[in-house]
Amino acid sequence: MTSLTKPIAIIAGAGPGTGASVARRFAKTYPVVLLARTPANLDPLVKKIEQDGGSAVGIPADVTNPESWTSTMDQIKKQFGSDLTVAAAIVNVASKFSRSSFLESGTEFLDSLESTARGGSHFAKAVLPFLLQEAKNRRGQYSPTLIFTGATAALKGGSGLGSFAMSKFAIRALSQSLAREFGPQGVHVAHAIIDGIIATEQTKGFKEEQPDSKIDPNWIAESYWFLHTQPRSAFTQELDLRPYNESW
Amino acid sequence: MTSLTKPIAIIAGAGPGTGASVARRFAKTYPVVLLARTPANLDPLVKKIEQDGGSAVGIPADVTNPESWTSTMDQIKKQFGSDLTVAAAIVNVASKFSRSSFLESGTEFLDSLESTARGGSHFAKAVLPFLLQEAKNRRGQYSPTLIFTGATAALKGGSGLGSFAMSKFAIRALSQSLAREFGPQGVHVAHAIIDGIIATEQTKGFKEEQPDSKIDPNWIAESYWFLHTQPRSAFTQELDLRPYNESW
Amino acid sequence: MTSLTKPIAIIAGAGPGTGASVARRFAKTYPVVLLARTPANLDPLVKKIEQDGGSAVGIPADVTNPESWTSTMDQIKKQFGSDLTVAAAIVNVASKFSRSSFLESGTEFLDSLESTARGGSHFAKAVLPFLLQEAKNRRGQYSPTLIFTGATAALKGGSGLGSFAMSKFAIRALSQSLAREFGPQGVHVAHAIIDGIIATEQTKGFKEEQPDSKIDPNWIAESYWFLHTQPRSAFTQELDLRPYNESW
Amino acid sequence: MTSLTKPIAIIAGAGPGTGASVARRFAKTYPVVLLARTPANLDPLVKKIEQDGGSAVGIPADVTNPESWTSTMDQIKKQFGSDLTVAAAIVNVASKFSRSSFLESGTEFLDSLESTARGGSHFAKAVLPFLLQEAKNRRGQYSPTLIFTGATAALKGGSGLGSFAMSKFAIRALSQSLAREFGPQGVHVAHAIIDGIIATEQTKGFKEEQPDSKIDPNWIAESYWFLHTQPRSAFTQELDLRPYNESW
Repeated sequence: MTSLTKPIAIIAGAGPGTGASVARRFAKTYPVVLLARTPANLDPLVKKIEQDGGSAVGIPADVTNPESWTSTMDQIKKQFGSDLTVAAAIVNVASKFSRSSFLESGTEFLDSLESTARGGSHFAKAVLPFLLQEAKNRRGQYSPTLIFTGATAALKGGSGLGSFAMSKFAIRALSQSLAREFGPQGVHVAHAIIDGIIATEQTKGFKEEQPDSKIDPNWIAESYWFLHTQPRSAFTQELDLRPYNESW
Repeated sequence: MTSLTKPIAIIAGAGPGTGASVARRFAKTYPVVLLARTPANLDPLVKKIEQDGGSAVGIPADVTNPESWTSTMDQIKKQFGSDLTVAAAIVNVASKFSRSSFLESGTEFLDSLESTARGGSHFAKAVLPFLLQEAKNRRGQYSPTLIFTGATAALKGGSGLGSFAMSKFAIRALSQSLAREFGPQGVHVAHAIIDGIIATEQTKGFKEEQPDSKIDPNWIAESYWFLHTQPRSAFTQELDLRPYNESW
Repeated sequence: MTSLTKPIAIIAGAGPGTGASVARRFAKTYPVVLLARTPANLDPLVKKIEQDGGSAVGIPADVTNPESWTSTMDQIKKQFGSDLTVAAAIVNVASKFSRSSFLESGTEFLDSLESTARGGSHFAKAVLPFLLQEAKNRRGQYSPTLIFTGATAALKGGSGLGSFAMSKFAIRALSQSLAREFGPQGVHVAHAIIDGIIATEQTKGFKEEQPDSKIDPNWIAESYWFLHTQPRSAFTQELDLRPYNESW
Repeated sequence: MTSLTKPIAIIAGAGPGTGASVARRFAKTYPVVLLARTPANLDPLVKKIEQDGGSAVGIPADVTNPESWTSTMDQIKKQFGSDLTVAAAIVNVASKFSRSSFLESGTEFLDSLESTARGGSHFAKAVLPFLLQEAKNRRGQYSPTLIFTGATAALKGGSGLGSFAMSKFAIRALSQSLAREFGPQGVHVAHAIIDGIIATEQTKGFKEEQPDSKIDPNWIAESYWFLHTQPRSAFTQELDLRPYNESW
């Protein structure tokens, strides 16, 4: 255990795609903690970040499980000292997208809502004390920032999309409520509406006919970084990100 | 068991206040089924409706429990025949309103979301087949209608209101999604944003200085009845209800 | 000139379609004043209302012209006495709908905005003193009501729809501002989002393949009447009206 | 007249405060054209930009006047060649903010709407051909960008704020419509909701008790610059900017 001079960044949902891009972007400035349910996702990302000269720790964690948070935070404190502060915390937990008839859906209908809401709120509860600490001590250059990844379904329900939309509406409600509570204490809480397919390994083959029709995850990361750099006189609470040719 | 010529109405959350007013309004036209967790709320309401010449059945039920729904629906079918159809179903399950610091809230933080989301979606799943049946058979005069009771917090989070806002945002997402899925099949799905204190026994003493500053629950009921009477060429998906002097 | 015991209703934009339906609905209770730019639209409507036992006066008027308002209000006062009060005032001035390339549009681009905004605000200014008078004196049974007819484009711009959307957004802004200013004085200000094609002579032939796919203007009228009957403890500021099978 | 290798930026409303900050930010990369009604505002800003090593041209212009646009664009073409392209165009035309009783307002009630709507749409019409040209030729590094400055009143009317809200709603409608029409052609159209008092000479003395309670105009400029740098796979259409302790 070493005493820390720098604040850290924590990324929940550090899977391939957005999570990895965000982790690599924030690792240019901060030591990053990567949380993911699947440990296999963590190792290559940690290695990549270290190769790029950054510092990263991967911790397998089920962010939806309140008990697992105690042990996760213990591991983080063990690593960085109990006086650690958090400069940036990003929630990138995917809500399972599925379009299915409401009446044919089973008990899984509420799974997405419950895991997203639990993941989002437990994560926020775990990291906010350290974000507030950073707001007081300001070891880093920028206002401490908590960002939630949302989707178009945060604004509008859809036929067969009830499960997904409930998740995304709820996270937006959480982000607005936390922004209003913790903004005045200097913590920047933001919500990003990602409206479009993200360009990842899994989405290869989709929308290939027109270039740049899928969102570059590195630019989600740049946008999150930009949000992080905003001073407290000019916080953005919500922005959307959408390919130029997406209809909406 | 009698074979039914009339469709029925089902009110979930038939407690005193809005639930009771809605039940009495719809009982002027339909036999009503009243669901409430607290049996003590049901008897006086059933009696009142019968005194007024209506027909009512009270069934104690925990609408958030998927298992209890099977037995609830069995009781309803036993009463009204398995070929029953539903003209109106109203979800009036209160989300617990509490304003509290996010960091001081405990595991109850998500209770409101989970019970509201479960209550709303289980209820919708249980009644939609009978609403669709009514859309096909049209025993009643009006388009079958499913109404969700919402609140201002469905549109806007607030400091210390995360739990409540998450519930209300989620129900709004559900109502929009169901409207888009079942509207084309002739079921009218609506969401009412109740913005203000409702005049009930419990709210006596609040806002007494200016008359009519609290929402008359009988007018929530009239508004729901109006929604129910709209023909399918002119469905309202969302309306708000607010005292004239409420600031918003 | 006769002294008036009843309050009156004024309908701006009493053309065929919505305006005529609204006029006939309100004429069941109030003497109505019908304003339209085209006098030819007024006579048959006045006749129809009188045949149905109502009382109507048609006044050719350009509602977008502030000077013409003085003479219009003079005519109304001459007819009904200068102590007249207004129970309901409905703005149904069509914004010209056109979808056209922004760069190919000429100076007419802003015509729709300017005429709609002028029409809406001049009308509101002319009638509000008489609505406020009715709020004080209450000759009629219901809260005095000012209703603006809006459209989906009040919520969302569209490619080639800038002109129309600017009009509709602006009217919505006006209705919200007036609701917040005059609601506490007892005047009910509402905005209706008409989302779909209205069934009129001109729209015959559209969407005929599915019954009830166009909004019945008589039901716009019923919905406006319903808004008018709401007591001040439960005013609706905004509702939408949409055919069951409209996608949105 | 020299043939241009670089695209230019045009700022409409280059007064002190936001306009000046935006001009200086974009002048780090592009020659800038500054438009303002008051010539006195232009000279010191042009000088300042040139001192900082940038290049600026000030043109006195009434952006709300369609005729004056012809001469304005002629002057710009004379300066930069008729094959000029525009990398960024920013509309920063202030809507006059005034809170006044609707019934006491005179003919000026619609002035703000008309000048804002005219200014915004005439400006957009004048610059879009050159933004489209830049989208095709790409002399600069970034996607050509058209940004509209908005306010909270773009989302919500207020008592006594009808005039201002109508302006801001209308500009938002325009920005959404243009984004949907010109986004697919590679032009990034964005709308920024500035929610709070901007720290300028005129607002000295307001909200001084808490530091950073007013929006730093340089950070509005940074946020606009950030929007400009987003690649077309990840355009932001709307973001808000608000001091950390602003209630909303």
